[in-house]
Amino acid sequence: MGLVVQKYGGSSVADAEGIKRVAKRIVDAKKNGHQVVVVVSAMGDTTDELIDLAEQVSPIPAGREFDMLLTAGERISMALLAMAIKNLGHEAQSFTGSQAGVITDSVHNKARIIDVTPGRIRTALDEGNIAIVAGFQGVSQDKKDITTLGRGGSDTTAVALAAALDAEVCEIYTDVDGVFTADPRVVKKARKIDWISFEDMLELASSGSKVLLHRCVEYARRYNIPIHVRSSFSGLQGTWVSNEPRGDRKVEQAIISGVAHDTSEAKITVVGVPDKPGEAAAIFRTIANAEINIDMVVQNVSAASTGLTDISFTLPKTEGRKAIDALEKQKDAIGFESLRYDDQIGKISLVGAGMKTNPGVTASFFEALSDAGVNIELISTSEIRISVVTRADDVNEAVRAVHTAFGLDSDSAEAVVYGGTGR
Amino acid sequence: MGLVVQKYGGSSVADAEGIKRVAKRIVDAKKNGHQVVVVVSAMGDTTDELIDLAEQVSPIPAGREFDMLLTAGERISMALLAMAIKNLGHEAQSFTGSQAGVITDSVHNKARIIDVTPGRIRTALDEGNIAIVAGFQGVSQDKKDITTLGRGGSDTTAVALAAALDAEVCEIYTDVDGVFTADPRVVKKARKIDWISFEDMLELASSGSKVLLHRCVEYARRYNIPIHVRSSFSGLQGTWVSNEPRGDRKVEQAIISGVAHDTSEAKITVVGVPDKPGEAAAIFRTIANAEINIDMVVQNVSAASTGLTDISFTLPKTEGRKAIDALEKQKDAIGFESLRYDDQIGKISLVGAGMKTNPGVTASFFEALSDAGVNIELISTSEIRISVVTRADDVNEAVRAVHTAFGLDSDSAEAVVYGGTGR
Repeated sequence: MGLVVQKYGGSSVADAEGIKRVAKRIVDAKKNGHQVVVVVSAMGDTTDELIDLAEQVSPIPAGREFDMLLTAGERISMALLAMAIKNLGHEAQSFTGSQAGVITDSVHNKARIIDVTPGRIRTALDEGNIAIVAGFQGVSQDKKDITTLGRGGSDTTAVALAAALDAEVCEIYTDVDGVFTADPRVVKKARKIDWISFEDMLELASSGSKVLLHRCVEYARRYNIPIHVRSSFSGLQGTWVSNEPRGDRKVEQAIISGVAHDTSEAKITVVGVPDKPGEAAAIFRTIANAEINIDMVVQNVSAASTGLTDISFTLPKTEGRKAIDALEKQKDAIGFESLRYDDQIGKISLVGAGMKTNPGVTASFFEALSDAGVNIELISTSEIRISVVTRADDVNEAVRAVHTAFGLDSDSAEAVVYGGTGR
Repeated sequence: MGLVVQKYGGSSVADAEGIKRVAKRIVDAKKNGHQVVVVVSAMGDTTDELIDLAEQVSPIPAGREFDMLLTAGERISMALLAMAIKNLGHEAQSFTGSQAGVITDSVHNKARIIDVTPGRIRTALDEGNIAIVAGFQGVSQDKKDITTLGRGGSDTTAVALAAALDAEVCEIYTDVDGVFTADPRVVKKARKIDWISFEDMLELASSGSKVLLHRCVEYARRYNIPIHVRSSFSGLQGTWVSNEPRGDRKVEQAIISGVAHDTSEAKITVVGVPDKPGEAAAIFRTIANAEINIDMVVQNVSAASTGLTDISFTLPKTEGRKAIDALEKQKDAIGFESLRYDDQIGKISLVGAGMKTNPGVTASFFEALSDAGVNIELISTSEIRISVVTRADDVNEAVRAVHTAFGLDSDSAEAVVYGGTGR
């Protein structure tokens, strides 16, 4: 039996009962002969409460001190978890990100891991301990300051430790049973995915699936660490994310992995842009200089009579104000007529590696949307994903229609291998 | 202007408003030209809440993980305080005990400081920062584990840093105006002491005064660091604790510094002890082996007829059970008849360096108690202190009577120089 890294999110350790339940599960893994490293998030709403306190004392943007503040949350949960494990008669030691050797750059609040030197973790394991590590945090290489990894950081900590310790698997415990073919809150018949490739998971993550974040999956793919996403509330198998289905699991890769949706984005249309070389570059350089990540980009066909065109792109709603301000400042330099801002949009994405070799997929996707009466405003495709932008109000209906059309509903016989409809 | 260390307790930083108020005060000291190092405790009841959580997950006694847990409290308050200071336009950086170079032994939950290497604090100060340091915590020299210093640990952190940084003064900010001649909750006319010697403060602290703990005063005396105890809620001068009254302060040393009381102790009487050499040693070796600190010890006069005597001692109530168990186990070896346990006692102590050269003090003390109808059960004296044990119910009345008798009441003209009563 090898080494496993288990990661438990805030909802799994929300209170003393949750911590005791998680401790039992960890001890079970140890009893099964594994060396166990546990990465834990802050309890329940602790992080939000700390952010709230910070806002009360200072409106100044987050930085070094903000990271120092937030890391208190994991310190509490990891110490309590170690105590609960000891209470079950097993040895456990907790480690801060710094003690665990999680070395990051110095970008406070969203630091990137640049190295993991888990010497103390190895020693603790060799001495028979279960090692508990604070998720979400590290120490900066140059200044030795405490840093945090930003949203989803605990998952990244777990995968990075799994890679550094050459773990057999990184188990991500959460409050859902795994990755689903669509958001089960929207699609009642959504089905748990038994196995999904890193590539498809990356596309789902960047299309709005919240279960795993893009960054964590990317890290796992780079170091080829299998991820097992599962519930901390049940003993069920969850979703395996890896390069290949595991040898003992007979899973045929579906053509379509799932349908993701996202209503956190807004659309900006730059109206009346001269249709000449360099215009798009000027617009997106302006956006990039404001450190805003954009998602989809579409340029309309130029109207021959005016020589002007429109360029639309989507971006997180939270960055909308900043983008508008940045573009307005450059209005004369770029030479557009006006800006339109629309935050009542939604994005629906169909993801699956089978798309590449099944030319009918795109057509079926659009037909399903058309049959559901959903109007398409933007389209963007990759080799294994098609995304469309619609009205926000249409998103749930669109997701359900597409899910059904591709035979993903849990009572459908066409679930695993697509192609039966002949479309 | 030199370097000052300021320490703020949990009640001073109980909420966002408190933190902002403290931040202003710190900035004022900086504006006055001082280099400022701040030691801060956990906010309000944070530590108690963490202890409560720990008890919910595990009844196992505190240790390494417990320390890891508790130190989260200071991490929160220090980061918030640094943010509040930045918000006032000044630079501040927060440091954990480990980052500040507070090196301790490995005795978790009550570690002792063995060295302070404040290199990062010096650098932060030299760069113009206000340095905020987590109180109550350090890092163990051998294992590099997080430790806590036990009750009153933040005061000790402050004094130790003041010594290591050669500070001008260590200011201890609290929710009272300073050290009083008696507990103001018991004695309405208790008066704030302007200056008190280290020695008298040590005796007051070990006699039940809660404002400063013995350990912290001892540390300050060893390194000759003046302490200024004062309120964080007002701008008033508080109480100076130092070797000599400061040059610019005309304070005549009072013969009596104050009256302290303590109702946290219990009394154990070992009945029927053979009156021969080695008996007392056997009893107190037994107690010492159980790692229990005792306070007063009194051996009664032996009854000639039986050759047996009684030995009484006081100890913290919390250690009562342990002491009884340890003695019972050794009953035959020591050869006593029985044990009596009494936790309804109180201790009243009169403290003052003037006692040494004023022989009337002891007599006046006993007369005051007698006039108030208070029965004395045990007596213990040092060169600058007299303590008596009474019934717990009599303590408040006894304190008031003694306070008045020695002219300590705030409306008395005899306050500073004792001797007027002729007793």
